[in-house]
This record gives sequence, C-alpha cells and structure tokens, in this order.
Amino acid sequence: MKKALQEAEMAFEKGEIPVGAIVVVNNTVIARSHNLTEMLNDVTAHAEMQSITAAANYLGGKYLKDCTLYVTLEPCQMCAGALYWSQITKIVFGARDEQRGFMTMGTKLHPKTIVVSGVMANEAADLMKRFFISRRNKL
Amino acid sequence: MKKALQEAEMAFEKGEIPVGAIVVVNNTVIARSHNLTEMLNDVTAHAEMQSITAAANYLGGKYLKDCTLYVTLEPCQMCAGALYWSQITKIVFGARDEQRGFMTMGTKLHPKTIVVSGVMANEAADLMKRFFISRRNKL
Repeated sequence: MKKALQEAEMAFEKGEIPVGAIVVVNNTVIARSHNLTEMLNDVTAHAEMQSITAAANYLGGKYLKDCTLYVTLEPCQMCAGALYWSQITKIVFGARDEQRGFMTMGTKLHPKTIVVSGVMANEAADLMKRFFISRRNKL
Repeated sequence: MKKALQEAEMAFEKGEIPVGAIVVVNNTVIARSHNLTEMLNDVTAHAEMQSITAAANYLGGKYLKDCTLYVTLEPCQMCAGALYWSQITKIVFGARDEQRGFMTMGTKLHPKTIVVSGVMANEAADLMKRFFISRRNKL
C-alpha cells in the first residue's frame, strides 16, 4: 500500500485527485498507476482502470487471477465494474469513499474476489483532504 | 443506431462479443467503436468505454454534455459507471442485458442523463444470439 500511496502523491503533484494503485502477483508489482483524468481529459483514466489494463498486458491475458490490487481509495462503480470483469483475486483499499464508493453504490464484484479495507486509510484520507484544501485555496 | 449495429457486426467478424457504440453531438458522429476485449486482452475495452474516451478526446473536455451515446446492448456496471462520470446527456440502447446490464445491477447514472431503451433491440439481440450459436458450434 506504501507504493500505491506514492502513486497517489504523484497524482497530487500533477493536480489530479490523489488516488494511486498497484497490482501485485507472487510478491511482484506488475502494474502501478495514478489518477490521470485531468491530464488525459478522460473520466475513464482512474488509477484502477490503468492498473487493470497494464496488469492484463503484463500477464498476456485479461483475467487477473492470483492478483491483488492495492488502491488508496475505495473504487467507484466504474472501477468495481471493471474489477468484476477481471475476476481479480483480491482487492485491498485504503480510505472509504462514502459518497461514490462501490460499497455505497451497491456495485457487485466477482463472487471469488476477496476485499480488505482500511489499510493505511488515514494516510490515504489525509492526502485527499490536503488536496481538496489546497485546491480550495487556489480558487 | 444503424451505425452502432454496423460496429457490432465488425466486432462479430473479429470473434468479439458483438456490441457497437457511437457518440453523436449536433447530428455529427464524433466517436465509433466496438468491443475489443479479446483482441486487446483487456476487460475494459468495451465499446462504450472506447467511445467515451474518443468523444472526450474529440471535444477536448472530459464531460459529454449535449452528447448522445447509441449502444446496441444495455451497458454493464463498468460502462454505466463511466457514463455517470461523463455526465452524458442521453443514452440510447438496443437490447436489454438481463443478467449483467446496469439496470439489473442497480448502477447509478448521472441524474441529468436521459435513458431510452429498446431501439432496434431485435436486431441487436439477434446478432448476439447468432454470435453465441456460432461460437458454440466451433467448440
């Protein structure tokens, strides 16, 4: 999760909502990404989406079996929907997104997917808070 | 919707689940795409996702205001989640996806988005049926 937080910090520095993600298989990081929706002008450029695509590319197959996604924020409907299709083995996320997270929205994951929440949640939430405070101060 | 069906037929010819999409603004087609999940080994390569990215690229902004997405099949959780973020004005889809469509799954769209369903639904459903029959015969 530390590596995912480093990715989130990279997003912060670019003026992007600071969310970072990595995908791990057999203790090896096979994908790392951070939110790029502003830079790419693309609502689909969430950290998780990029990591899913990159991990599948690395594996040479679209299913992320035996993979764990670490992401600093609870995934949204779109990302949870993509994770559903990927049949990923495990998702570990940091802070809850009470408003737009997949748990609040009721998005379904693949029945085989294990979810762990709250890992380094304070660090992830603090980063989000700092981002929105800094953005407000710029207005 | 005819153009979206043409895209779906292109997917069929490539051995992809036949779903096609276009995005229209002011009577101009600004994006067209078809499902490429097999070719790209990427669960995120649904027709809608590609059209959202392409339309935003054309517009130079990530929000698809005044845009209409025509898609041959009811969008899934992932695509509906992306459409939520895009704040698209209108979604017109063909056939229902009773199992994995966003209506069944309860995925939320943006409150401003208008949804029209059932347009050329028989043609879209027939194409899907033909695809799955042809695939079964190959096994």
